[in-house]
Amino acid sequence: MKQYLKHNDWQIIEEGFDPHYNRISESIFSLGNGRMGQRANFEEAYSGDTHQGTYVAGVYYPDKTRVGWWKNGYPEYFAKVLNAPAWTGIQIKIGKNELDLKKCKVSGFKRILDMKQGLLHRSFTATLPDGKKVKVDAKRFCSMADGEIGAIRYSITPINFSANATITFSVDADVVNKDSNYDEKFWNEISKEAKAGLAVVTAETKKTLFHVTTAITYAMHSAGKVVRGRVKANKKDKYADNVVTIPLKKEVETVIYKYAAILSSENHPKKKIQENAKKKLKDASLKGFDKLFSAHASVWAEIWRKCDITIEGDIAAQQGIRFNIFQLMQTYTGEDQRLNIGPKGFTGEKYGGSTYWDTEAYCLPFYLGTSDPKVGRNLLVYRHKHLQRAIENAQKLGFNKGAALYPMVTMNGEECHNEWEITFEEIHRNGAIAFAIYDYVRYTGDEKYLSEFGLEVLIGISRFWSQRITYSNAKQQYVMLGVTGPNEYENNVNNNWYTSYIACWTMEYTQHALDYVRRHDAAKFSKLMAAIKFEEKEETTRWADIRKKMYLGEDKKLGIYLQQDNFLDKELIPVKDLRHEDRPLNQKWSWDRILRSCYIKQADVLQGLYLFDDQFDNETIKRNFDFYEPLTVHESSLSPCVHVILASKIGYKEKAYEMYLRTSRLDLDDYNNDTEDGCHITSMAGTWMSVVKGFGGMRVKDGMLHFNPFIPDQWKSYSFRIEFRGHVINVKVSKTGVEMVRESGAPMQVVLNGTLTNV
Amino acid sequence: MKQYLKHNDWQIIEEGFDPHYNRISESIFSLGNGRMGQRANFEEAYSGDTHQGTYVAGVYYPDKTRVGWWKNGYPEYFAKVLNAPAWTGIQIKIGKNELDLKKCKVSGFKRILDMKQGLLHRSFTATLPDGKKVKVDAKRFCSMADGEIGAIRYSITPINFSANATITFSVDADVVNKDSNYDEKFWNEISKEAKAGLAVVTAETKKTLFHVTTAITYAMHSAGKVVRGRVKANKKDKYADNVVTIPLKKEVETVIYKYAAILSSENHPKKKIQENAKKKLKDASLKGFDKLFSAHASVWAEIWRKCDITIEGDIAAQQGIRFNIFQLMQTYTGEDQRLNIGPKGFTGEKYGGSTYWDTEAYCLPFYLGTSDPKVGRNLLVYRHKHLQRAIENAQKLGFNKGAALYPMVTMNGEECHNEWEITFEEIHRNGAIAFAIYDYVRYTGDEKYLSEFGLEVLIGISRFWSQRITYSNAKQQYVMLGVTGPNEYENNVNNNWYTSYIACWTMEYTQHALDYVRRHDAAKFSKLMAAIKFEEKEETTRWADIRKKMYLGEDKKLGIYLQQDNFLDKELIPVKDLRHEDRPLNQKWSWDRILRSCYIKQADVLQGLYLFDDQFDNETIKRNFDFYEPLTVHESSLSPCVHVILASKIGYKEKAYEMYLRTSRLDLDDYNNDTEDGCHITSMAGTWMSVVKGFGGMRVKDGMLHFNPFIPDQWKSYSFRIEFRGHVINVKVSKTGVEMVRESGAPMQVVLNGTLTNV
Repeated sequence: MKQYLKHNDWQIIEEGFDPHYNRISESIFSLGNGRMGQRANFEEAYSGDTHQGTYVAGVYYPDKTRVGWWKNGYPEYFAKVLNAPAWTGIQIKIGKNELDLKKCKVSGFKRILDMKQGLLHRSFTATLPDGKKVKVDAKRFCSMADGEIGAIRYSITPINFSANATITFSVDADVVNKDSNYDEKFWNEISKEAKAGLAVVTAETKKTLFHVTTAITYAMHSAGKVVRGRVKANKKDKYADNVVTIPLKKEVETVIYKYAAILSSENHPKKKIQENAKKKLKDASLKGFDKLFSAHASVWAEIWRKCDITIEGDIAAQQGIRFNIFQLMQTYTGEDQRLNIGPKGFTGEKYGGSTYWDTEAYCLPFYLGTSDPKVGRNLLVYRHKHLQRAIENAQKLGFNKGAALYPMVTMNGEECHNEWEITFEEIHRNGAIAFAIYDYVRYTGDEKYLSEFGLEVLIGISRFWSQRITYSNAKQQYVMLGVTGPNEYENNVNNNWYTSYIACWTMEYTQHALDYVRRHDAAKFSKLMAAIKFEEKEETTRWADIRKKMYLGEDKKLGIYLQQDNFLDKELIPVKDLRHEDRPLNQKWSWDRILRSCYIKQADVLQGLYLFDDQFDNETIKRNFDFYEPLTVHESSLSPCVHVILASKIGYKEKAYEMYLRTSRLDLDDYNNDTEDGCHITSMAGTWMSVVKGFGGMRVKDGMLHFNPFIPDQWKSYSFRIEFRGHVINVKVSKTGVEMVRESGAPMQVVLNGTLTNV
Repeated sequence: MKQYLKHNDWQIIEEGFDPHYNRISESIFSLGNGRMGQRANFEEAYSGDTHQGTYVAGVYYPDKTRVGWWKNGYPEYFAKVLNAPAWTGIQIKIGKNELDLKKCKVSGFKRILDMKQGLLHRSFTATLPDGKKVKVDAKRFCSMADGEIGAIRYSITPINFSANATITFSVDADVVNKDSNYDEKFWNEISKEAKAGLAVVTAETKKTLFHVTTAITYAMHSAGKVVRGRVKANKKDKYADNVVTIPLKKEVETVIYKYAAILSSENHPKKKIQENAKKKLKDASLKGFDKLFSAHASVWAEIWRKCDITIEGDIAAQQGIRFNIFQLMQTYTGEDQRLNIGPKGFTGEKYGGSTYWDTEAYCLPFYLGTSDPKVGRNLLVYRHKHLQRAIENAQKLGFNKGAALYPMVTMNGEECHNEWEITFEEIHRNGAIAFAIYDYVRYTGDEKYLSEFGLEVLIGISRFWSQRITYSNAKQQYVMLGVTGPNEYENNVNNNWYTSYIACWTMEYTQHALDYVRRHDAAKFSKLMAAIKFEEKEETTRWADIRKKMYLGEDKKLGIYLQQDNFLDKELIPVKDLRHEDRPLNQKWSWDRILRSCYIKQADVLQGLYLFDDQFDNETIKRNFDFYEPLTVHESSLSPCVHVILASKIGYKEKAYEMYLRTSRLDLDDYNNDTEDGCHITSMAGTWMSVVKGFGGMRVKDGMLHFNPFIPDQWKSYSFRIEFRGHVINVKVSKTGVEMVRESGAPMQVVLNGTLTNV
């Protein structure tokens, strides 16, 4: 854990420049707007250690997979998040020296991420090798008001000299991916243009043939006047720029504006993309930085109005939770049904793909609670769009009759993951996708979704479970063999309780959905049944039989559910007795040792008790928590939040707070030593859930919000805003009580600590 | 299954040239001599489909591994069997046409592998594109009398023309591996030389820096006279040759001899290797083809004297068994303690590495039964030499105190395999290495081996088991979690009966070895105990406790041992009910489907009953055989032989014969559709065991040979020769009885069908 950044309620602040932290800060200070994103790379040249990253949503490269031993069923490619053409470059040469912080003496360095307004602000004074001193103040944002626009305000003031400077405004598509299986570059050039005041490059991804056009222009002001320098427009392979020579005068600030339009063929016809980009760029530059920024900032104001969480008495926690909300909202805005929430968002390349079960299990509740219902709906529709591919994916593995297995990782619905114990066996992801439908309908009341899209997906998933579950003559019960549960520190186990439970639940809920749609939309029902050749009697009879005779491992003496059949054969030594030097296990232990151990990477049985907590009494939850929590190492960022929520529910307040600390500042304090690769975007939703569902005890039952809040001893108060069926309410919990204020929407009733309450 | 080759008792015969079979034939007709080997590639140019392969024993390349997701404990490299500099090339150009069977009309093509004498013989008539007809007769061998010498006799007779021909005698080190993870070439050039009558190239492997010097010379005769042509000596990158222009006269045979010396730095100092090669080459060429061949053939005569198996009444079976013995003896001669038996021998690159548990479990019994005891001893010493690396390998996985885990695949003792479920979990290989010590001592009576090398290895392995086995509080017994048994169609299972059984047996035998060495060689005993810091009381007490309280799964009702804890939870549908189009499973089914299925790739519980058959009564063996055999798909070449031996023991003669058919002609009939990659060398030893231990019922008990033979209905008679403690005896089994003849050594007693018999 590192405490490098200053604590502040609305800002992330880095003071002083430490090159060792640069990659970490590049991740943390990333900007995005749902359409594109940008790591906090410097505008000017930097020859030190850096991880360059510009990302355009939906644009990926299907990198040829690398496997040790090929297994039937493996996918041919792994979709890589692409480092896209760079638009932020403003290289500055003063005399013979390049402004490059690696080669300068740097003082007064400060980097601020203003979360309230979505602005990255950096300032410093640099002494060039020849002694020239220059002060720089750089601001930039990726517009939330127009997802295709980025803008930079870069001010430069000579302190002890006057001299000519050449400023290079570049667009560079000759970029590399750090995450490339065979060290290839992924972009080809389609066209480029460079003339005074304009540089445009259109690049195409190999294989996938996405086009991205990046167009830039700029303006310069000094002492209230427009500065026009000598301009040279250059082109080289995948690259275009303008090099402008201007005079810098001692102690006089020159303000440089750079505007970029970044358009992708996902949203523009390839034939018109350059034209559209240039038009967009022109409009933006005419508006200018301040107007663009003000439109951008007002979108952020509206976001915070709906979803802010405040914490009094703990500024680190306050900063942490806002950072998480900020990054989530930068990553996914819910407007585009084709997009999803990548595990690193727009902050890094790692893990490739864009969609994991994180979306359904962690992110959906966040967007349900903070955004218009259409955002959650779009996340669900995304999976419906991929249903046919999930069916094909299941077919590849030997399933048939419309059984659907959603991929572990995907960009376009096709499986990208290639590790048999995950790809073929971590099938509980299918359950999370079914549960998300239930969760969405429960929260929004939008039962029509079942008719429109939900039922078809549910049937595909239930068909999968029905085929994946087999009958054991020895047990005289149904079993599910060869699965990997949420705890990836066990692989290929039998009868993982969580997976078996959610499978049975899916079949039950599918039956409910069948009945609902038949009753409410008979025409649609018949049409769907015919289209998917549903043999209702036969299929639902088997589902019912499975639900009745499913083997769900439990140990009656201990009163716990069994993570898998042989769990109790393991040596059960609590995590606290592990040697410090053995942690984290995934870096210190061989894989077989981890697998044989009792250590749980992330909530597994407890994940089930969390999702279905209304089906278990508190004593049962407590017994399982007491058994599994001491064996859990939380080496997944998705783990602690589930423990917060359960611990809160069973009254383990200290434990809940301890777990909360592990989740809320995971990236800010680089807990897992890997923030340099990007932030843990999806798990940030877990932090939000920790506060709202954990401390706040929020649930939805029978169409109403319920709250059972408590306040951690360490805090004075906390409050969260919730969007629920057209209402926004603010729940404030302090030492003395709970205050609820309806901020918009009609009067409503909620259940507070069991009591019906008007808000 | 393909029946492409002619049946013959001593020869493999291909008649007619079918390019589609060329790779398969290149494998089957391979030559070797333990030191080097050569696929049956044509001497003359061939532009059709071919897999070029020249191999030099012990020379390998550590190719950078390719993995999907790196796991702690994985090795950095996978040792690749190297395609070495080619020495066989004799390119022939007549007029403007290259002699290239791809471009000629070919008639009378015949390829013969004379197994009796170790000679590859090929003849054909080719019509060149311009109508010139030429008859070719080519013979070659890799000398068993001198492992560094290869010789070719290539005769060429113009049928309808006279013309000049240019003959190119090449050495080509610019070769590629088919099996290369990153498509790199593995050789650098060190030096080359080309002058009239000589071409030499010394090449060095990248990273491992082995040197191989290949030196060639040649001679030509026609009509009883030496032919000297116009010679041009050429060099290019990694290549040297002599191009000789000679006149060919219609209907007159020209005989070309090419001699090669292939020396490696494993056997020669790098500074002297070229000089030594040239000297060797000169000696060989002075002797000439006929003398070299006669020395070579007499080595083969001696081999067959010791280890031939004859089968009367079934020429296909006769050919099959001799082919297997021939290939084994070509691959490993037992003279060099550094060498071992690669799964493809010198017939292909596939699987890399050189040493698998195949050596101990399958090949050792063959060499014990057919060769001087020093051959078996050398195979054991090979593992002793690797003990320190096995200890390091175990340390990488978290074991300590001298615990040794031998690698799954190795060249020099380091693990090469990188697939966690195999590398880290298929640990029964350790048991096979312990058992081999027992097997060798039992067969040869060389108990001193225990003092010299055996005990140290046994203790290392027992220490591993002792740490790998843990105590289950739930079962109140010891368990072994997370293993892959011999049946690789189940991974990461718990309590694999075979592995647990052989682990306990190892600890028992190690105790026996401890007692033996203490009693017979007290000084050595104390020295060893001190060197390896053996805490005798503590360690052996734990071993004894484990043996006493080990959980070995069984089902009392079925009367069977359980392959693993959940085996009976599977859907048990016999192999015969599988659809034809589902076979072979490993090509048709996804990996998870295979894992969840009941289908057994190769003997697992039955492997244990085979190794320890004196510890189980026939009824027990029968019950387990009846249960597991119908579920076994034999998709490993190592499987059927175990079934032959057990079926023979329990009187299932038809089944034994059926299984035998699957093993004996596996490559000759390309049963598994993969012979083009090379022959299944190690499993060939299983075929020998099938006859000797299966049909012949041979066992060693109390220092004596026992036989319980039967004869398959389909055969008239069969006989095998056995080398046993200085005796060679010939056992002939016919419909009317058993005949035993002592062929060398002093008179001895054997036990035939339970009766003490003088031989």
